Amino acid sequence: MPTARSAVVLLSGGLDSATAAAVARQEGFQLFALTVRYGQRHAREVDAARRVARWLGAARHLELEVDLAAFGGSALTTDEEIPKDRAIESPSIPSTYVPARNLVLLSLALAWAEALGVHDIVIGVNALDYSGYPDCRPEFIEAFEAAARLATRAGVEGSRFSVRAPLMRMTKAEIIRLGLGLGVDYGLTWSCYDPVPDGTPCGRCDSCQLRARGFREAGVPDPLLQP
Amino acid sequence: MPTARSAVVLLSGGLDSATAAAVARQEGFQLFALTVRYGQRHAREVDAARRVARWLGAARHLELEVDLAAFGGSALTTDEEIPKDRAIESPSIPSTYVPARNLVLLSLALAWAEALGVHDIVIGVNALDYSGYPDCRPEFIEAFEAAARLATRAGVEGSRFSVRAPLMRMTKAEIIRLGLGLGVDYGLTWSCYDPVPDGTPCGRCDSCQLRARGFREAGVPDPLLQP
Repeated sequence: MPTARSAVVLLSGGLDSATAAAVARQEGFQLFALTVRYGQRHAREVDAARRVARWLGAARHLELEVDLAAFGGSALTTDEEIPKDRAIESPSIPSTYVPARNLVLLSLALAWAEALGVHDIVIGVNALDYSGYPDCRPEFIEAFEAAARLATRAGVEGSRFSVRAPLMRMTKAEIIRLGLGLGVDYGLTWSCYDPVPDGTPCGRCDSCQLRARGFREAGVPDPLLQP
Repeated sequence: MPTARSAVVLLSGGLDSATAAAVARQEGFQLFALTVRYGQRHAREVDAARRVARWLGAARHLELEVDLAAFGGSALTTDEEIPKDRAIESPSIPSTYVPARNLVLLSLALAWAEALGVHDIVIGVNALDYSGYPDCRPEFIEAFEAAARLATRAGVEGSRFSVRAPLMRMTKAEIIRLGLGLGVDYGLTWSCYDPVPDGTPCGRCDSCQLRARGFREAGVPDPLLQP
């Protein structure tokens, strides 16, 4: 049962959401973890989410199927090639962008939060070391909170839904150091968009590049890559 | 293929969304119809949506499964009893409210619209003859449009997504008269939340009451109730 200090946390299985969830747990939140299978190619992310939820001691972990692949429009949900060795500082939004993904994910988290009577939602978005996805920026999060108030019975009755994005202004290296300080085992997480057939990360997609740079700058090895 | 004048229309199978779609078609829009099976008890609504999409001549009709019933929190997605003979003028939000439903539905419509390169979304919400659901009000629609601009690549690149809610300020009788003028066959639509075992509308839930009052005030018989 949710308590006065419970939160719904969006858990993808990646490094950022694991860290954001660990921050919320440290702040005393009981966690209701939500993982959405939206048709992403890197479905092993979902296995990682399960491991992370167990490690977090989540009160519940719900997996929901929402087939965004049916809409197309993203290399992440179709057969289109995942960009490799891309300059990750490039200002352009890459083809791995999934149309309106974070709006869909937050809307689902809100639906669960309202049903539970919970007013906090945790998401691991980050507008610094990221791929330029528009739905990772603080102005989007604020617009979502405004819509959430108007979209819900709880909002109309005076509750304010708060979207907590504790990593918003951190570099990947800062995120990793924060997580290590909270005991996060990054060996449980998964980032690669396009693993090679033997099941190891490709090392060349945006997500692998951002992760590698983060561990390098944090000055620690990535446990996922340890033999 | 979508054209310069295409729209994604949320089609529930009910009377309102069929009318809103017919208005958009009349305005020259090519229709991409989206129906979401969200775990509603009145699943025959989805069969109705299929009939309506066919009648509309939709360019595509996509059915998406999103199990909002997993979240609970609504009589419409659980075993909880559907309120009967309720005073539909009551200002309270009834137990058939589904947490954040329209935000989830609009987010999905937006995802498809962006993937298609379409900027118009049609929804049959109505803030006059309705059940008091918060996510049917114009201020919610405006907040959603603001979030949509910030949530998407297309928005960042300067596109404006427009949510068309042509029925927003109409009574049910006005909606029915409008639809009849556009040739809508309301015998194809379905409204009842809780049909009796022989498959006829219960006549007593909010949705049946609103529909009956609409046809009564419009001075026409409901073709669904004709022998």
